[in-house]
Amino acid sequence: MAAHDLIRDQVIRTPVLNDPDLDEALGCNLFLKCENLQRTGAFKFRGASHAVAALRQQGVEGDIATESSGNHGAALSLASTLDGRRAHVVMPENSVPAKIASVRRYGGIVHFCEPHHRARYEGLSKLVDDGLLPIPPYDDNRIIAGQGTVALEMIEQVEGIDTIIAPIGGGGLIGGVSIVAAENDIEVIGAEPEGASDTYESFRSGTKADDVQADTIADGLRALIGHRNFALIRQNVSEVLLVSDEEIIEAMALVWRSIRIPIEPSSATVIAAMSRYRDHFRGCRVCAIISGGNIDPRFWAETIIQGSDAD
Amino acid sequence: MAAHDLIRDQVIRTPVLNDPDLDEALGCNLFLKCENLQRTGAFKFRGASHAVAALRQQGVEGDIATESSGNHGAALSLASTLDGRRAHVVMPENSVPAKIASVRRYGGIVHFCEPHHRARYEGLSKLVDDGLLPIPPYDDNRIIAGQGTVALEMIEQVEGIDTIIAPIGGGGLIGGVSIVAAENDIEVIGAEPEGASDTYESFRSGTKADDVQADTIADGLRALIGHRNFALIRQNVSEVLLVSDEEIIEAMALVWRSIRIPIEPSSATVIAAMSRYRDHFRGCRVCAIISGGNIDPRFWAETIIQGSDAD
Repeated sequence: MAAHDLIRDQVIRTPVLNDPDLDEALGCNLFLKCENLQRTGAFKFRGASHAVAALRQQGVEGDIATESSGNHGAALSLASTLDGRRAHVVMPENSVPAKIASVRRYGGIVHFCEPHHRARYEGLSKLVDDGLLPIPPYDDNRIIAGQGTVALEMIEQVEGIDTIIAPIGGGGLIGGVSIVAAENDIEVIGAEPEGASDTYESFRSGTKADDVQADTIADGLRALIGHRNFALIRQNVSEVLLVSDEEIIEAMALVWRSIRIPIEPSSATVIAAMSRYRDHFRGCRVCAIISGGNIDPRFWAETIIQGSDAD
Repeated sequence: MAAHDLIRDQVIRTPVLNDPDLDEALGCNLFLKCENLQRTGAFKFRGASHAVAALRQQGVEGDIATESSGNHGAALSLASTLDGRRAHVVMPENSVPAKIASVRRYGGIVHFCEPHHRARYEGLSKLVDDGLLPIPPYDDNRIIAGQGTVALEMIEQVEGIDTIIAPIGGGGLIGGVSIVAAENDIEVIGAEPEGASDTYESFRSGTKADDVQADTIADGLRALIGHRNFALIRQNVSEVLLVSDEEIIEAMALVWRSIRIPIEPSSATVIAAMSRYRDHFRGCRVCAIISGGNIDPRFWAETIIQGSDAD
């Protein structure tokens, strides 16, 4: 895949972890693709560095603009800095403080907006009107192709995958992964929080839902599904599974207890879905994408304790 | 190596991580061998499962006794449970609560003692007098050989290692690693907290120091160096480096910031040593053993915040 060749030297080939205790707890053979260990702490660096590399390949100079609740912003900030550019990131004012700090640490400039989808798009439009190059967070072919490289690695790392499960926010990750999976006859399942169920509803009705107000602990999954992304999901994804915030919290605690990695609520949706719908996965070889690990340490600690008490 | 063959199916072949940002921060090419992702969250499971497998190979039945501040106790509890035995663990009453819970979760029985070296040995002696089979935490050839398997994997995973750096508590890890490293012409360096500097002092004087009272945040390194272990260190280790608790805390924050894994204070000693004595490692290919990740979430969060403020 051309995208992989462009970014191979920049992204980390993240490890795949298997843990016998977690296998037993979930009743299947589970391989965690640890994008929480990717540069900037999330898979987003794949898409961001591919989009910037594509501009470089085309000889396009100039600074970058995007909108993001955090992980894409941080990833694009680093990808831009490594390419000698500056990234301007429109962020909802209620973004996780650690994610705001991360954008700044990687050289990005933060522009706050109100925490609504429209305010984010308007903020981005204004920056583009001012002459910056837009790299949107997910509804973009360069981004989708970049995120898809995670599936290429998984197929090399794990033999005989039956199913890949990925979280759904804007759909950049599952969109890119689904292209690669379809070429390799692997089932793809999406996981989404009940409090941000626009893709679930769109998938059921066949029409993209645009009126869902997100209310979930999974801050990385509050975005509405993108147009290109929804088309890919309709074509390549077999099922979208919903989970509650409580199940997400329990899954964060389970992953910590069994394999000692802290994961974002967004990442925990896939484990929560495997736990809730365990019959669907029983006896299968499942690759779950742990999408990111950018948690606020204090928030994470309190959440883990809450999730452990629920056992 | 015979030990590796005995436990290969039971231990996790833990990943090796490299991060460009961490390389830049430390001025060398650093590969983290992530034993925090080992079963029970620490390298200790290698030695424990090897010692139990050795008993099984010899046809010796019966329950096990040991003394441990936590990680060895949890590891031996799981190794025993997997082999159909019970582990009895003498633990200092000031052990980290998460580590006490972990021993119990893996099926071990906890016997509390006063937080002194002598009380630990006496507690273990009593259990052995009662007929249990002793598997001491580090001063034991089965344990040392088991821990050494981590170096065999590293050599397969990373080409051209110049130096391996490992933390020193009782010396099981560095002892086993040093045997493998010596056979492969790789330098071995140990890291020890200033508040538990018995190996440093023993290494300087040539005589095992037995009068050091440990006072350090690195709870896994409070043990005195073992006899077999000290002999191996004198023979195979080129240097023992000391670090302060403050440097350990800063290293925990650095590792979290750069690669998003929570590590124990004991593990952070190696990163702290590389930061304090960076000229020693400049331009080298260094393999650092991240020995464990069994932290109490709240304690870790507060420590990370403290360590980040120190920057």
